[in-house]
Amino acid sequence: MKIIVLKFGGTSVGSLKKIGIVSKIIISYVKKKYKVIVVSSAMSGVTNELLSKTKKLASNFPNEEKDVILSTGEQISCALISGKLNALGYKSRSWLGWQIPILTRGNYSSSRIIKIQKSKILNYLKKGGIPIITGFQGINSDFRITTLERGGSDTSAILCAKFFNAEKCIIYTDVKGVYTTDPNLTNSAKKISKISYEEMLEMASLGAKVMQPASIQEARLNRVEVDVRSTFSKKKGTNITQKKNILSKNTIRGISFTKNDAKITLIGVKDKPGIAASIFKPLFENSINVDMVVQNISAGGKETDLTFTIRLEDLNKTRRLVENNKTIKFKELIINKNVSKVSIVGVGMITTPGVTFRMFKALAKKKINIEVISTSEIKISVLINKKNLKKSVEILHQEFKLSNSL
Amino acid sequence: MKIIVLKFGGTSVGSLKKIGIVSKIIISYVKKKYKVIVVSSAMSGVTNELLSKTKKLASNFPNEEKDVILSTGEQISCALISGKLNALGYKSRSWLGWQIPILTRGNYSSSRIIKIQKSKILNYLKKGGIPIITGFQGINSDFRITTLERGGSDTSAILCAKFFNAEKCIIYTDVKGVYTTDPNLTNSAKKISKISYEEMLEMASLGAKVMQPASIQEARLNRVEVDVRSTFSKKKGTNITQKKNILSKNTIRGISFTKNDAKITLIGVKDKPGIAASIFKPLFENSINVDMVVQNISAGGKETDLTFTIRLEDLNKTRRLVENNKTIKFKELIINKNVSKVSIVGVGMITTPGVTFRMFKALAKKKINIEVISTSEIKISVLINKKNLKKSVEILHQEFKLSNSL
Repeated sequence: MKIIVLKFGGTSVGSLKKIGIVSKIIISYVKKKYKVIVVSSAMSGVTNELLSKTKKLASNFPNEEKDVILSTGEQISCALISGKLNALGYKSRSWLGWQIPILTRGNYSSSRIIKIQKSKILNYLKKGGIPIITGFQGINSDFRITTLERGGSDTSAILCAKFFNAEKCIIYTDVKGVYTTDPNLTNSAKKISKISYEEMLEMASLGAKVMQPASIQEARLNRVEVDVRSTFSKKKGTNITQKKNILSKNTIRGISFTKNDAKITLIGVKDKPGIAASIFKPLFENSINVDMVVQNISAGGKETDLTFTIRLEDLNKTRRLVENNKTIKFKELIINKNVSKVSIVGVGMITTPGVTFRMFKALAKKKINIEVISTSEIKISVLINKKNLKKSVEILHQEFKLSNSL
Repeated sequence: MKIIVLKFGGTSVGSLKKIGIVSKIIISYVKKKYKVIVVSSAMSGVTNELLSKTKKLASNFPNEEKDVILSTGEQISCALISGKLNALGYKSRSWLGWQIPILTRGNYSSSRIIKIQKSKILNYLKKGGIPIITGFQGINSDFRITTLERGGSDTSAILCAKFFNAEKCIIYTDVKGVYTTDPNLTNSAKKISKISYEEMLEMASLGAKVMQPASIQEARLNRVEVDVRSTFSKKKGTNITQKKNILSKNTIRGISFTKNDAKITLIGVKDKPGIAASIFKPLFENSINVDMVVQNISAGGKETDLTFTIRLEDLNKTRRLVENNKTIKFKELIINKNVSKVSIVGVGMITTPGVTFRMFKALAKKKINIEVISTSEIKISVLINKKNLKKSVEILHQEFKLSNSL
């Protein structure tokens, strides 16, 4: 069987009219003799609306019941799609997570899919049916509904492609693909036709909100071919694939950035072995993600300055945790909310020396000060003043010739 | 175990504030040492809203998927109730039809409950939990979600009381109980404290929309003690019970009426054996409910006039079916939309002669013309001009001393 998985995001099924469009896309693949498996998100806005109900009802609303409520979003969108396909003369039915079943493990509201039972869906495909599978949810060993992390429908789709051995997983969304940088920031941004999992992962987790990062990681681990494209355009999107399939000669493939970071600097920290661990322990325990970290070499080995970044939304909690931390001593805590992180991403970086130098030089030329630096194998990130964000992205886009992207 | 079933209707759970009120009612029974089983409807308006979506998407939207969509209404309300109870410190969880399971048979959108598996719920009750069970739905042998007829949550509750051997089933709704007649029509209406299943059945199916008629029938067959009362009042409601428990000396217990009937008269029908069957066959086949029927004795045995009533909403369809019916011949078809059916109901009627006479005399005294009459063992119905409705109900209410009701 030539199986293909089509995943539709919330904005793609956001109205009855759009469900009509989605149905036509599905039928076009049926006509190309594909066995089509559809995975759908909830209609846009629905999940947030349901979530706010639970919050209004009780601040300590239990996750077990929250999952029962949130899962109805996909239950409705999938049944609407399948009902529409039936009305158009195609054999289709909704398959809810517990009916397949999609087995999950872990906490409610942040479960992980551990297995998708294949037999019922395969049987249904063989009979010529089009299964419409609820994303974002499954069932655990207690026979209760669970949901994944927000955006988890992407992971549901990628894992469907894995378990059913699909030729490809196509992520239909409201953007035309992955861009060299955010087209809303600068119109020099260009659509990338092919990108590696690794590059996409860096792009996604750094703020290019096309796909949920965890889903890209699953695609990479299981070598699932992924296309990202728009539900509302006939144009080809971006293919996410293995490094070896990338033909681009560009060292750098994209520039991502954040706008919601905060920088915290602790001045005059009593320096002793394990001091960084003492500072970050309560943050990790409270699920606060510490991103960039830099520790100045201490003068005379007695005191040091420590700088780190977190998400802006975690700022108050972080401040409280640091100030109440009895295991550390420091003189002053300085907060800076006017920071942005700009990152250049590309697998070519590994084999190309001098990329860091080119980046720093390009920024220096425009007198843009770099506050913190962090690097991985395929990305370099710098923290800058937020007011220089657009200028920085544009200069780097030019420096690394991203307008010539493939 | 001293088990009680509490059922909450759509208006009782129609807002987050009301869910707070419902939670307090549930807790009050827990404090009285009851093992409480809750059955809930969807929040008011939700089912209609979902239904209209399916209709807008496709006129031939399949019932299979409609049921998947409609069932989310109760899924949400039950999880909200149970989440609230948890937040208040009580052990509770939502139980969806398929999780228990509540087994159904029959067509989608009008399935019947054939069994409720007891083990999981009993186990949960023994552990001190408060199960919140979705009304209106179940699962069929194809492992798919089914819904009952509209208003089916009442039946779900009654059958829970039956299968779990509950002491009582309390229907919490937005009215204070069953009244001698509609309080909106006349303020002489009085709340009835006890009524028999049989009387309630006649009252319900004749337009007193307190409970779904099918659910009262289930209560009667299984001798389930039922209370109907308001979620928003501390006052006692109406107890629906066996005839032998009724102490009232009143022959007539209530007066019900309809406002949405139409009368059709066929003049000069060629009279031959089976003519009535020929007229009604296509109506039955199209699920049109023919209510009152009267056929005049034909003069000379050649022609007859036939009068019958149907629901106003079926009028156009009925007219078309009668006019296109090639198996019958008639001279004229007369339609009257200005009719109302008024019925007096009471089990005492069986043993009390002269009730019919008293009814007719009371109406005649006020010069109210009776167009059609029909009777059953415990009710007498007359069709009158709609403009006389209020007057008729009031005069009968007085004649049968319903203001002295118990």
